[in-house]
Amino acid sequence: MKTILRIDASARVDRSLSRDLADRFVQEWKRLRGDKDSWIVRDVGTCPPPFVSQAFIAAAFTQVSDRTSEKSAILETSDELIAEVKKADMIVLSTAMYNYGVPAALKAWFDMVIRVDETFSFDLKRGNKPLRPIQSGKVLVLLTSAGEFGFSQNGFNQGSNHLVPHIRTMSYLLGVEAVHHIGIEYQEFGDERHEWSKSKARDAVVELANTLVHGTAVKN
Amino acid sequence: MKTILRIDASARVDRSLSRDLADRFVQEWKRLRGDKDSWIVRDVGTCPPPFVSQAFIAAAFTQVSDRTSEKSAILETSDELIAEVKKADMIVLSTAMYNYGVPAALKAWFDMVIRVDETFSFDLKRGNKPLRPIQSGKVLVLLTSAGEFGFSQNGFNQGSNHLVPHIRTMSYLLGVEAVHHIGIEYQEFGDERHEWSKSKARDAVVELANTLVHGTAVKN
Repeated sequence: MKTILRIDASARVDRSLSRDLADRFVQEWKRLRGDKDSWIVRDVGTCPPPFVSQAFIAAAFTQVSDRTSEKSAILETSDELIAEVKKADMIVLSTAMYNYGVPAALKAWFDMVIRVDETFSFDLKRGNKPLRPIQSGKVLVLLTSAGEFGFSQNGFNQGSNHLVPHIRTMSYLLGVEAVHHIGIEYQEFGDERHEWSKSKARDAVVELANTLVHGTAVKN
Repeated sequence: MKTILRIDASARVDRSLSRDLADRFVQEWKRLRGDKDSWIVRDVGTCPPPFVSQAFIAAAFTQVSDRTSEKSAILETSDELIAEVKKADMIVLSTAMYNYGVPAALKAWFDMVIRVDETFSFDLKRGNKPLRPIQSGKVLVLLTSAGEFGFSQNGFNQGSNHLVPHIRTMSYLLGVEAVHHIGIEYQEFGDERHEWSKSKARDAVVELANTLVHGTAVKN
């Protein structure tokens, strides 16, 4: 049995292309695996987590043994979201690109779950790389949609991709070691390229589910 | 007279290094210019704007003439924040780096102010670059603080800088044509390098204020 955490970050529920990719991935996964796995679903697009506040930072950087009940209460949502991440062997994350990066709601989620002594440890003895993830071996299936296109290396908009590289960097601190990204592009053009991109991505999520279930996925 | 929009995005008010840089910039600017300018102050760190919702997207993409009063009401905060951006000749933006990118609260601000037919226009006749800023000639003074270091090209953490490049990309759509960035690094090391970095940045903001006031700033 695996525990799979599904996170959806698009603010749109109707006709969301990224949520649809996640639906298709989950459907294929369940077709192959039946009820074998345990699922956790977290919709940050419609129910965004709270923002980091000064009180939150103070509480997070206070040793557990020194935390007042008030300080602990401030961390409750963060604790709950972190517990979900810790349980997960695989994270299926669907998100739209907003203004070339993650939606604020998804950043709020990352800011709640990347927490010292919970998801990462900090030690200056490590020199110039003091942060290290506490967990390991997680798989991230990252499903995106973008209005424009060409965000990969040497692409038309290569300098403007602040979505996937940022999620890769952040996910590392959650213990993610393999990222599988599939994205739909050209949404705002609504042309043949968009239709082709959708169709290609939809085939790819089905193929990825098969590859991951059959254990032949290569880390990338 | 210039109109200057100051935005502070750190969740911390006490001992915030980025807010302190902005304070020093503003102090020097006012020392040089007196009361000549008009200031707008927006603290998104302590009062974050709302997240984008499905209803917000629907309202923003409805032509003004077709908007119901309910739809218009959903856009009120966005309208208010956009009006501030439109008035501004210069934006002084102070922010901490959270998890290698903008704090969620600052992303929420960008997601509220980058709006079709308000800050950018969209036209498929322009081919593969359909978005264009409506305003132009704005100056952005970007003041940051980061726990780690070496986020510039060929730096120790060059692949993990999702803060400044992302802000550059987004600011373009607000009509920003010149970005002046000064940042403090090494905060979580608390060592001599951090002291040196603070001192260098504090000198640099004073120098930048002088350069901008005397009109000899070079676009970069």
